[in-house]
Amino acid sequence: MKLYSYGTAPNPRKVVIFLAEKGLDYELVEVDMMKGEHKTPDFLKKNPSGKLPVLELDDGRCLAESIAICRYLEAVCPEPNLFGRDAFELGYIEMRNRQLETELWSQIGQSWVHGPVVAKMGIVKQIPEVKEASDVSVEKYYERIDKELAESEFVAGDRFTVADITLVTGIDFATTLVGLKPDDSLANLWRWHAQILSRDSVDDIVSPK
Amino acid sequence: MKLYSYGTAPNPRKVVIFLAEKGLDYELVEVDMMKGEHKTPDFLKKNPSGKLPVLELDDGRCLAESIAICRYLEAVCPEPNLFGRDAFELGYIEMRNRQLETELWSQIGQSWVHGPVVAKMGIVKQIPEVKEASDVSVEKYYERIDKELAESEFVAGDRFTVADITLVTGIDFATTLVGLKPDDSLANLWRWHAQILSRDSVDDIVSPK
Repeated sequence: MKLYSYGTAPNPRKVVIFLAEKGLDYELVEVDMMKGEHKTPDFLKKNPSGKLPVLELDDGRCLAESIAICRYLEAVCPEPNLFGRDAFELGYIEMRNRQLETELWSQIGQSWVHGPVVAKMGIVKQIPEVKEASDVSVEKYYERIDKELAESEFVAGDRFTVADITLVTGIDFATTLVGLKPDDSLANLWRWHAQILSRDSVDDIVSPK
Repeated sequence: MKLYSYGTAPNPRKVVIFLAEKGLDYELVEVDMMKGEHKTPDFLKKNPSGKLPVLELDDGRCLAESIAICRYLEAVCPEPNLFGRDAFELGYIEMRNRQLETELWSQIGQSWVHGPVVAKMGIVKQIPEVKEASDVSVEKYYERIDKELAESEFVAGDRFTVADITLVTGIDFATTLVGLKPDDSLANLWRWHAQILSRDSVDDIVSPK
């Protein structure tokens, strides 16, 4: 199978980490988003939404949306389990993952879209008030996560799951490209972050060598 | 089990439809969001995010996030299947569902937050430019869905799935409360909508008797 990806972009990175956790082989195909290669007619056949990542199976069928790709991979390669083993855990891990997506990732996304890097691209009308509000939401959510990680070793309990992948990719993107690094005082969050970055599956993009 | 819900709010409605499709019994508990009952200390113990719906199991454990609740219900009651039977279908249905969430629901949400109903509540700073942009995105996405539903009976293929629940609740909310009814010319979308509303599990909130 092939994974269409772009550098350290956060959504493709989720799948790259997930594949490494599963120990699966694949071909990595770089799609240069800065050159608009994800919007060409050929690429839109693979994903009409014109987004990365896309997983192309050996029979040519394609899947988009990072977590949908991960769920496919979980089904074809169940171990190590990353989405939950019983009904409650399946619901609980999905809940934790979705809270991060709807309450943190969405706000990081707003700060990105209405921030200086995207401004230079000239593709979206900048609304500074949006970024002001989302910056505040991100900082508040970091504080909530820090409290939660005082009670829990990982995002969704006592073991590594897909929800940890969602959090680390979100925080690292916010830190490196959106100017929203969590405050140094958030000790539980940084304890967790160091633990996640020590995994073989996770490249350190925050402080690259 | 108890479902904490509020009227025809779109996220609780997803779970109400899902439960009816599964034929499961439960107690419905109304939480008056207009009175802030979803932000009380007692309710925040059930869901620290202060949102509806919440499913409370008989042992007191709670799950939030509508799709996470649905996934729990799918695991305890696998038939009729609504999330996919094999690896590819599991990925494909999740992809379709997430495209609706990230490309349509998110934009309906922006038009709601920066629209007249929320303005009257005085809880969020209104940014008219945001609503102007999201209104356009919603209309464009309706057109995309209409084309897709010319090729496919349901949102994710030839059978009813959770992705149809996500679309109908999004469109009905947009129509009744956000002023974003799909144009009458979108014949495939309305063919699909009539088909979905004919199901016993789906109350007609767009044209209530």
